[in-house]
Amino acid sequence: MKKQNVRDLIFEAGMNSFHGMGFNACSVQDITSAAGVPKGSFYNHFDSKEALGAEIVDRYRENSKLAVLLADQSVAPGRRLQEYFTALNQRYGKSQFARGCLLGNFGMELSDQSELIREHTAAAFAQWSSELESVVAEAQAAGEMPDELSAAELASFLLNSWEGAVMRAKIDKSRTPLDIFMKFALAPYL
Amino acid sequence: MKKQNVRDLIFEAGMNSFHGMGFNACSVQDITSAAGVPKGSFYNHFDSKEALGAEIVDRYRENSKLAVLLADQSVAPGRRLQEYFTALNQRYGKSQFARGCLLGNFGMELSDQSELIREHTAAAFAQWSSELESVVAEAQAAGEMPDELSAAELASFLLNSWEGAVMRAKIDKSRTPLDIFMKFALAPYL
Repeated sequence: MKKQNVRDLIFEAGMNSFHGMGFNACSVQDITSAAGVPKGSFYNHFDSKEALGAEIVDRYRENSKLAVLLADQSVAPGRRLQEYFTALNQRYGKSQFARGCLLGNFGMELSDQSELIREHTAAAFAQWSSELESVVAEAQAAGEMPDELSAAELASFLLNSWEGAVMRAKIDKSRTPLDIFMKFALAPYL
Repeated sequence: MKKQNVRDLIFEAGMNSFHGMGFNACSVQDITSAAGVPKGSFYNHFDSKEALGAEIVDRYRENSKLAVLLADQSVAPGRRLQEYFTALNQRYGKSQFARGCLLGNFGMELSDQSELIREHTAAAFAQWSSELESVVAEAQAAGEMPDELSAAELASFLLNSWEGAVMRAKIDKSRTPLDIFMKFALAPYL
C-alpha cells in the first residue's frame, strides 16, 4: 500500500466513524479497523485522534457539494436560498435522520473539551454563514428581501435554526422538524 | 451515609458530569469520584450509566424553573414568550456558553447509540414544545399572533431554533447567536 492511500483510508474511515459514533465513543482502533490498516499506521499519518478530527471538520465543510447551489448566479437569490435548504432537507431525509450534521455533532460534543476542534468547527460555521449572507445580501439588493435587516444576522439565524432542526430530526427520527423549518424559516422574509 | 443520600449524590454528580463532559467521555468512576462515594455503590442504585442518563433527562426537564414563566396567566401570552426566551438567554449567558443544553447535548451524542436515552430526550422535547404551543395558542386566541399558523408547528420551530442558537453559542463561545435568536425568532409573529 502506498503511504498516501493509507492516509486516505484512515481519513475516510475516521470521517465515517466520527459521524456515526461521535468522537469520544470512537477509538483509534475503531478507525484503523474500519480502514483495514494496522493500528500503528495511524500515528504515521496523524498526530492524534484530535488532529484527525480537526482536519475532518475542515474537509467536511469544503466538500459540501450543495454550496454550488448558493453560488449559482443564474437563479434569483431568494429562490437559491429556498432550493439550497430544500436540497439540504432532502439529503438529511435519506439517512433516516441518523448521524445529523458532523459540524453540529462535534460542536456539541467537543466545544468544552477540545479547543482545537472547537476553533475549526467555529471557523466552518463562520464560513457557511458567510456564504448564506452573500445570497441574503444579493436578495436584498434585488429587492426580494427587506433590506433593513442585517444580512449577516439573518444568515446566522437561518443557519442556526437549520442546525436546531437537524438536531431535533435526529432525536425524533422524523423529517417533521426539517419540514417545519422549510415552512417557517424563510417565509417572513421572502 | 443513608442509602437515599448516596443515590442523590450520584444523581447530582452524574447530571453535572454528563453536562460538563458529555456522556461517552464520562465514566461511572468519574461520577462516583465526583460524588465522593465508592465506585461499587453506583450499581446499588442504578442499573447502568445509560439508566442514570435517562433518569437525568427526565429530571432536567422537570426541574426547569423557567417553565413557571410560561404558565403565568397574569402576563399577556406574547409577552410571556418574550420573557421566557429572555430568561433562557440570560441563564445561558452566565456559564460562558459552556455546557449548553443537556437535552440537546444528549440528543446529538446519543440518538443513534442509546434508544433508551433517545426516547427520553424526544419525550422531554415534546413536553417542552407542548408548553410553548399552549402559550402560542393563547396568543392566537388573544389576537396577538396570526391564527392561520399551526401553534404546534410554530412552537416547534421556536424551540428547535433556540436549540440551534444554544449550540452555536457553545461553539462560538459568544452570546451573539442567542441575541440574534431574540431579534429574529418572535419578531415576525408578534
